Amino acid sequence: MFLKVTTAAVLLCALCAIAFAVFNFYSVKAKSEGTKQMADIAGKIRSGAMAYLSRQYKTVAVFFAVLFVIFVILSAAGSMSWFAPFAFVTGGLFSALAGYVGMKIATYANSRTANGARESLNKGLKIAFSSGSVMGLTVVGLGLLNISAWYMIMHFIAGLQDAELMQVLLTYGMGASSMALFARVGGGIFTKAADVGADLVGKVEAGIPEDDPRNPACIADNVGDNVGDVAGMGADLYESYVGSIVSCGALAVSAFGDGGSSRAAAVMLPMLIAAIGIIASIIGTFFVSTKEGATQKMLLGSLRKGTYAASILSAAGAAALIFTMMPDNKGLFISVIAGLLAGVLIGYFTEYYTSDSYSPTRKLSESSETGSATIIINGISLGMSSTALPVIIIGIAVLVSYFVAGGANSAETGLYGVALAAVGMLSTLGITLATDAYGPVADNAGGIAEMSGLEHEVRERTDALDSLGNTTAATGKGFAIGSAALTALALILTYVDSIGAENMDLRVTNPAVLIGLFVGAMLPFLFSALTMKSVGRAAQQIVIEVRRQFREIKGLMQGKAEADYRTCVDICTRSALREMILPAALGIVAPLIVGFILGPDGVVGMLAGALICGFALAVMMANSGGAWDNAKKYIEAGHFGGKNSKNHKAAVVGDTVGDPFKDTSGPSVNILIKLLSMVSIVFAGLIASGNLMNLF
Amino acid sequence: MFLKVTTAAVLLCALCAIAFAVFNFYSVKAKSEGTKQMADIAGKIRSGAMAYLSRQYKTVAVFFAVLFVIFVILSAAGSMSWFAPFAFVTGGLFSALAGYVGMKIATYANSRTANGARESLNKGLKIAFSSGSVMGLTVVGLGLLNISAWYMIMHFIAGLQDAELMQVLLTYGMGASSMALFARVGGGIFTKAADVGADLVGKVEAGIPEDDPRNPACIADNVGDNVGDVAGMGADLYESYVGSIVSCGALAVSAFGDGGSSRAAAVMLPMLIAAIGIIASIIGTFFVSTKEGATQKMLLGSLRKGTYAASILSAAGAAALIFTMMPDNKGLFISVIAGLLAGVLIGYFTEYYTSDSYSPTRKLSESSETGSATIIINGISLGMSSTALPVIIIGIAVLVSYFVAGGANSAETGLYGVALAAVGMLSTLGITLATDAYGPVADNAGGIAEMSGLEHEVRERTDALDSLGNTTAATGKGFAIGSAALTALALILTYVDSIGAENMDLRVTNPAVLIGLFVGAMLPFLFSALTMKSVGRAAQQIVIEVRRQFREIKGLMQGKAEADYRTCVDICTRSALREMILPAALGIVAPLIVGFILGPDGVVGMLAGALICGFALAVMMANSGGAWDNAKKYIEAGHFGGKNSKNHKAAVVGDTVGDPFKDTSGPSVNILIKLLSMVSIVFAGLIASGNLMNLF
Repeated sequence: MFLKVTTAAVLLCALCAIAFAVFNFYSVKAKSEGTKQMADIAGKIRSGAMAYLSRQYKTVAVFFAVLFVIFVILSAAGSMSWFAPFAFVTGGLFSALAGYVGMKIATYANSRTANGARESLNKGLKIAFSSGSVMGLTVVGLGLLNISAWYMIMHFIAGLQDAELMQVLLTYGMGASSMALFARVGGGIFTKAADVGADLVGKVEAGIPEDDPRNPACIADNVGDNVGDVAGMGADLYESYVGSIVSCGALAVSAFGDGGSSRAAAVMLPMLIAAIGIIASIIGTFFVSTKEGATQKMLLGSLRKGTYAASILSAAGAAALIFTMMPDNKGLFISVIAGLLAGVLIGYFTEYYTSDSYSPTRKLSESSETGSATIIINGISLGMSSTALPVIIIGIAVLVSYFVAGGANSAETGLYGVALAAVGMLSTLGITLATDAYGPVADNAGGIAEMSGLEHEVRERTDALDSLGNTTAATGKGFAIGSAALTALALILTYVDSIGAENMDLRVTNPAVLIGLFVGAMLPFLFSALTMKSVGRAAQQIVIEVRRQFREIKGLMQGKAEADYRTCVDICTRSALREMILPAALGIVAPLIVGFILGPDGVVGMLAGALICGFALAVMMANSGGAWDNAKKYIEAGHFGGKNSKNHKAAVVGDTVGDPFKDTSGPSVNILIKLLSMVSIVFAGLIASGNLMNLF
Repeated sequence: MFLKVTTAAVLLCALCAIAFAVFNFYSVKAKSEGTKQMADIAGKIRSGAMAYLSRQYKTVAVFFAVLFVIFVILSAAGSMSWFAPFAFVTGGLFSALAGYVGMKIATYANSRTANGARESLNKGLKIAFSSGSVMGLTVVGLGLLNISAWYMIMHFIAGLQDAELMQVLLTYGMGASSMALFARVGGGIFTKAADVGADLVGKVEAGIPEDDPRNPACIADNVGDNVGDVAGMGADLYESYVGSIVSCGALAVSAFGDGGSSRAAAVMLPMLIAAIGIIASIIGTFFVSTKEGATQKMLLGSLRKGTYAASILSAAGAAALIFTMMPDNKGLFISVIAGLLAGVLIGYFTEYYTSDSYSPTRKLSESSETGSATIIINGISLGMSSTALPVIIIGIAVLVSYFVAGGANSAETGLYGVALAAVGMLSTLGITLATDAYGPVADNAGGIAEMSGLEHEVRERTDALDSLGNTTAATGKGFAIGSAALTALALILTYVDSIGAENMDLRVTNPAVLIGLFVGAMLPFLFSALTMKSVGRAAQQIVIEVRRQFREIKGLMQGKAEADYRTCVDICTRSALREMILPAALGIVAPLIVGFILGPDGVVGMLAGALICGFALAVMMANSGGAWDNAKKYIEAGHFGGKNSKNHKAAVVGDTVGDPFKDTSGPSVNILIKLLSMVSIVFAGLIASGNLMNLF
């Protein structure tokens, strides 16, 4: 009875989110697109983005088909449930669907936001934020719908036990994870190849401003914002969301007594907290509005009001749930709070290190005085210093959530508490992702306003919205990294749980663990190198193409002929799809190779190594990149010589280096650390029985 | 009887090394310094270097005095042996002495090498290499002398048991470690502040070549080569050498049976292998010579002949020792070989990634075509990719040396095997360090030849010697990192051993270990950020001073007035000494704070995290930096537009970014990972009894 009611409630909340997203989708779509030129440009961006997405899905489908066959074989051999192959596919499918919806609405909303800004700042903000909320609520809605539906099918219809059922759900998580990898890596390469390519030839060589319609890569650049920042970010957080809920449920099985109501409650708790979070997020969206002439601080405040309201509601709901459902483990409430707070704090410090309102980025732009080498060195060292606080925050969150959950008495419940912190952090994802997906929409709106020559006043409004988007993007990135770290941690604990800690020697002094740690720490470096090189190669092709168009299309520079935008979009698409294969393969193959040689102990070492080193590296790359970007903007705003000064040139070099840091390699590392764990979990049985360490 | 004979033999070999070093010292000093001008310049470099060193020692003395008092208090409280404070001081003192001697001879040898090159290439090579061998043999001689002398005093006179005795020797190791930290960080800041400062104003702003006597920072730049590359590198490897021998001895105590001859043999084995290595190194030095007109390949071959001969002799000696002394553990021989081979291979791959004879660096210089941002991105990604092979090599070395030592039956002997691999890698340090310390001497010789306007032919010879020095510096850096990793690993195992594995929960899933890992992984990032910022600040001051001199000293640019070199040296000295305090404090305080909060389990996590992440980061920084440096030189040699082209300018930016990477932050991380372990070991008792985790 308890289970039936709760799963139904969860399903209902998931459907609520979807319904609300659909409603917002159509109400945004009903708005006017503005002038014909605006509609035209938006149409080009939309068709470019959709063309990329459909080709990406086709490429990824091959990968999913291959893995599906492998899973079917494994099921036939009895080493996984027959549900697993199908769960795996739905994981990928629903993640793709969420990406598709998010991108669709983002590419509808860009021109409408620009048009709304022609009326008032508030109108522009509302449209952009509404479209963001479509993305946010689609991600959480589809994620939770899928989990609860699978749970119901397997539990009530097929009668599976929780332990086996959770293993299937983890395969579902691997599906989401694989999809996320392709979306993040492919999208990240697309967006930065277009951006760097457009900048190098357009801004530097031809001396025309960003988003100038004469630049053949400008549509590709705008497509990239959607492909990378909307679809990629969405898939990343979809994975974290699903991964944290599922791994927490899996840990509940061994942490709490057999069969009793407390175990059922513990298994359901993460889903219920997520469900409460959805309702809280929906309510939170109503708090977002602003009035004309709002400063950036006020704009930021209006978004913050929404997320804080949702956080408070979510916390209250979690308290009610935990106090009634698990009266013997009231401490778990603190675990949820620890996670929520950690997410907010990491976001805050990301902003501190990367926003030009604070001293680190201001000092960075000052260092442009002595040239590009100095700004590079200082940017890297800024990023490196900025790793300290997030690590300490995560450390405290883990420690607190472990001990308040009762870790001193039972390690299993303590670790359940840690996983619950991840769920807590992600519970308000519906609205945090909305503020995040808002950014690229505002960015695109600015581009459309520029390209269609709207009035100065409108540009000023879209600039204000865009600048806010940069801040939310920064906090969003911090949040994505923080939640990826906690989720990956929960997944590692789930892996250990699935093999059984008693069957393993997980001491750091075990050479298998030790070598695993070494290899794991190296993987994020290697992975970042691969993705960075991919961006370089793809950007190079754009540079060549843009130069060709400037040379061959007569009258282009005079604005008399139209550039061939399609070819640039096409080149980015093909490069991104080709270049994403190798890094993706690394993420999937590494756990299998390490597992085969070093056994499960070595796998745990590798996962831990990749997590800790990847977390530091991802924070560093995101914050170095963000700070360079804003240091450049700070100079452009008239400081230290202003636009086109020697200092500005130095800052542009910093920004260009930062592009793949913050938008390709850094975020892709988030996925890597989760995917490694997911792959390890799914193939745990295979690795445990067949590895070289068994010979000794 | 066995012990008396063997310790006497070890002591004798150490004295041999010192005698040979003294002989080489005076035979180099007996050579002519060349023209008055050459002697004059060399004198300025020497007095600058010595002035820095003596002020550094004064600063460090305060630190040693404070720790000495703390150790005396701890001894009085009974928590460490009365020998410990004194051992600690001698560790620092002998490391300082080795640095002093190495620097003295390097600053004697620079003008003499230049003068030798006036006669023939071989003469130049011989003088430079002889002075390098003074450094190499002083380091190993003093290191082993100190260990064996303390061993004799404590064992034969005071009658201490091996377990307690080894603890004292570890305190001695901490002394060496602390000294190394100051030498590496201070020296690294000095050398790069001078280099970057001299380049930024001299090369870029004033357009005068490197080593031009009109540049007020040129003497400081040459002083820096000695201070950073000679004294810093020497202290680093002195620490690794001492650390690996002592930790291996300490691990022998618990790995082998009580009292039997096998335990005594196991304790003595690392010292004896080191002793054999000294003799092998001395013999190896006689293999080094070349003839006129030798290509760079032939020059490199002549140095290689020496190191390979020493390695083979050393391996043969180790075989003889192990087969006679430890007939039941013949596999340990393979451990030694694994270490030796790993050192050679890591050195080789460092060369592969950073030398312009191979494709990675050539491709990097090609990427200068699209500007400085591209060369930065590609250089970072080159460095990141280059972490893979060293990690795999270390992994294989650890795995092999563990299992051949019998790790499958007894973890303790397996771990002893791992520590022995570190000893094996470092056994031929006498000659590897000689080839390494040769580099800065050749570099200085080139500078002196340039500054005193020697004939073109002589410059060509010193250039050949210098270019060879760049290669040996690259392999030397790889070797230093590899040996630091293995030594740190041995120290971590020693730490666990000293607390007792049975008293700890070292599983990766223990939250204390987990958070320790997170914090540990972050420390190298934070530490690198601090040292990089230090270089930036110090270089800034040099820039201001050089600009001032160009402005205020009339006739300086026309070569009619002499620059005020002293002030530049002075500024570098003061900056380096001031800036080294904070990073040094981090290395010493971090293990205490982590230990106090997370207890010994957390400390192990932190040490492992710092080791794995620091290793990857150090390799990345060293190789990115080395590749940028050589990519620039490759362009200067006439490729991709040659000197003063647009491409060259881009490459100069890369080189400038790489300077603190490869010569300050990267090498300092080597020290950090060892020092953290040393501090943890020395304060192990204190931390184990008083930490917050005891409350749970």
